[in-house]
Amino acid sequence: MKVTAVIMAGGKGERFWPQSRANRPKQFLSLTNDGETMIQKTVARLSGVVDIQDVFVVTNETYIGLVKEQLPDIPDENVIAEPKARNTAPCIALAAQIIRKKYGDAVMLVLPSDHLIKFTEMFVDTLRSAIDVAEKNRNLVTIGITPSYPETGYGYIQFSGADKSMPGVYRVERFVEKPNIERAKEYVNAGTFLWNSGMFVWKASSIIYNIEQFLPDVAEGTAKIGAAYGTDAFEDTLRAVFPGLTAESIDFGVMEKAKDIYTIPGNFGWDDVGSWLAVERINHTNEYGNVVKGDVISINTKNSTIIGGKKLIATVGLEDIVVVDTNDAILICSKDSTQDIKKIIENLKICNRSELI
Amino acid sequence: MKVTAVIMAGGKGERFWPQSRANRPKQFLSLTNDGETMIQKTVARLSGVVDIQDVFVVTNETYIGLVKEQLPDIPDENVIAEPKARNTAPCIALAAQIIRKKYGDAVMLVLPSDHLIKFTEMFVDTLRSAIDVAEKNRNLVTIGITPSYPETGYGYIQFSGADKSMPGVYRVERFVEKPNIERAKEYVNAGTFLWNSGMFVWKASSIIYNIEQFLPDVAEGTAKIGAAYGTDAFEDTLRAVFPGLTAESIDFGVMEKAKDIYTIPGNFGWDDVGSWLAVERINHTNEYGNVVKGDVISINTKNSTIIGGKKLIATVGLEDIVVVDTNDAILICSKDSTQDIKKIIENLKICNRSELI
Repeated sequence: MKVTAVIMAGGKGERFWPQSRANRPKQFLSLTNDGETMIQKTVARLSGVVDIQDVFVVTNETYIGLVKEQLPDIPDENVIAEPKARNTAPCIALAAQIIRKKYGDAVMLVLPSDHLIKFTEMFVDTLRSAIDVAEKNRNLVTIGITPSYPETGYGYIQFSGADKSMPGVYRVERFVEKPNIERAKEYVNAGTFLWNSGMFVWKASSIIYNIEQFLPDVAEGTAKIGAAYGTDAFEDTLRAVFPGLTAESIDFGVMEKAKDIYTIPGNFGWDDVGSWLAVERINHTNEYGNVVKGDVISINTKNSTIIGGKKLIATVGLEDIVVVDTNDAILICSKDSTQDIKKIIENLKICNRSELI
Repeated sequence: MKVTAVIMAGGKGERFWPQSRANRPKQFLSLTNDGETMIQKTVARLSGVVDIQDVFVVTNETYIGLVKEQLPDIPDENVIAEPKARNTAPCIALAAQIIRKKYGDAVMLVLPSDHLIKFTEMFVDTLRSAIDVAEKNRNLVTIGITPSYPETGYGYIQFSGADKSMPGVYRVERFVEKPNIERAKEYVNAGTFLWNSGMFVWKASSIIYNIEQFLPDVAEGTAKIGAAYGTDAFEDTLRAVFPGLTAESIDFGVMEKAKDIYTIPGNFGWDDVGSWLAVERINHTNEYGNVVKGDVISINTKNSTIIGGKKLIATVGLEDIVVVDTNDAILICSKDSTQDIKKIIENLKICNRSELI
């Protein structure tokens, strides 16, 4: 069966302000040292699994230009602009309808555009196993990540015993929301929980079937838009129908309720790059535990991330601090406050300083 | 007797990097919000005590242009360029010789160019008392500051009982170097110690007499230069003789050895503005204990000094941090590390980056 990919690229990436901006969020930035952006890496690592003609990107209208600029080989008709962000369920439902319209049916790899994966070959092997499972029946497959520590910022997937006919594949018992630290430790110790990576594999027909069960208005609306795909009416239908769909995540709206969900534990160096803290995980740290880019002089500075811009940054006596300099804004943030960066953006919104957002 | 002032303006102000630079040190900057530079304030507060024609500035050759630009009313012949920094004793000795050549004899107010004083009238009253004492005999007067806390960054002056004939004037017992914190607490509790402000009042003839006693080579060399003052030979003599003089502070070289030293305790809101920490003492702090200048958004930031430049500075979750942005360099320094800012400058020197020093 044909294998397609749906790259979800509508995120605003506010947690990476000031590098990430409303008009150029995280997925369109390079947070590593190789110049390749997150979304370019996401597509590149599908090489050999999905033909570039079969890669779809669902994004916000604002980012269409960036997608076409950074991924020029993806056909224009595969780049879908959400007129309004409606969370992941309508996004995935729409992509499924379009894929069904275009191909009859196909396997869909549903992938966030802004995660990093260190070991591409292992990732590809996992995808291939997931595709095998997804091709059967109405199986829904979620890629789980073997937890390496009790992270409280991720949801978890509880799984039960392996299916004898499918080695390495486990039946999902339940999805659990982000836990507190005690609960997270229990999960990691239990050995039957995985991190929920937000990566899914299924046939278009399987996920449409489930959305019809659990989110009928989303199924109905996206079916209408899908029917118009490839005709002159598509744009108008999309704009008329999509904004009215229930905003719901695929996890809460479908996965927590559906049957026949399988997970394949991945161990391929995944990172969701969820905050500036990730930069020290995905980059080389020096002997003082610092990640340093650009023109930086550090005296007695430890475990800090310092990303310079055009001018010298001098740090003295700092520990656990993130510094990011850009052309028009400098962020200085303690590591345990990275979740509060969004308050800066709220403040800028209140002051109508959209040029800085 | 004529009263003159000698403003010592040769300091490099490295502790105020990156605002202070080798070609524009602290005394030529405004660290308050009123646009007036430190040296302009120093001269302005002498109004009514010293005629501007009788104000002398001793500075480094490099800063002659800045002095003339910022203090255009001071006669050119009163601006003296040290060919090489030799600490305060040769500086003061030279000024004394020049004043003796020009006026026969005169009272000299010897003042650093880069201190701040909050209550000018009280300061002027103190100067007037000091002038009265200095005019008598060969008295040397040092202005002491009533200590408000056990500062370890200043030297102290121990004084004994008041002289009945001169109310408010005390005989100096000894000068003591910067103490450790226990000793500093003892000094403050004793009630017989003052901070050494580095401000002195004496007749030119009195200090020359003492320099002849304790630093004969400095006396001899500066006498030669002073003899050439006002002639075509002055510049050449200055350049030939001054660099060879013993580099010594007036405190160690003369004050710790001389007799007839008096002190007048001042309580006029003095601050030596010795590091970035001073900025929060001399400026308004907001309800979170922050001093903020320029375009700054602070979230959960306390007791910090944030001096913006042209771009937005956003701080999140910081405490006791100093941030200073300039056109070509940003400093981020913990408050207890401000003494290490000089290491940044050392580093820049090693790397031949003089444009940033």
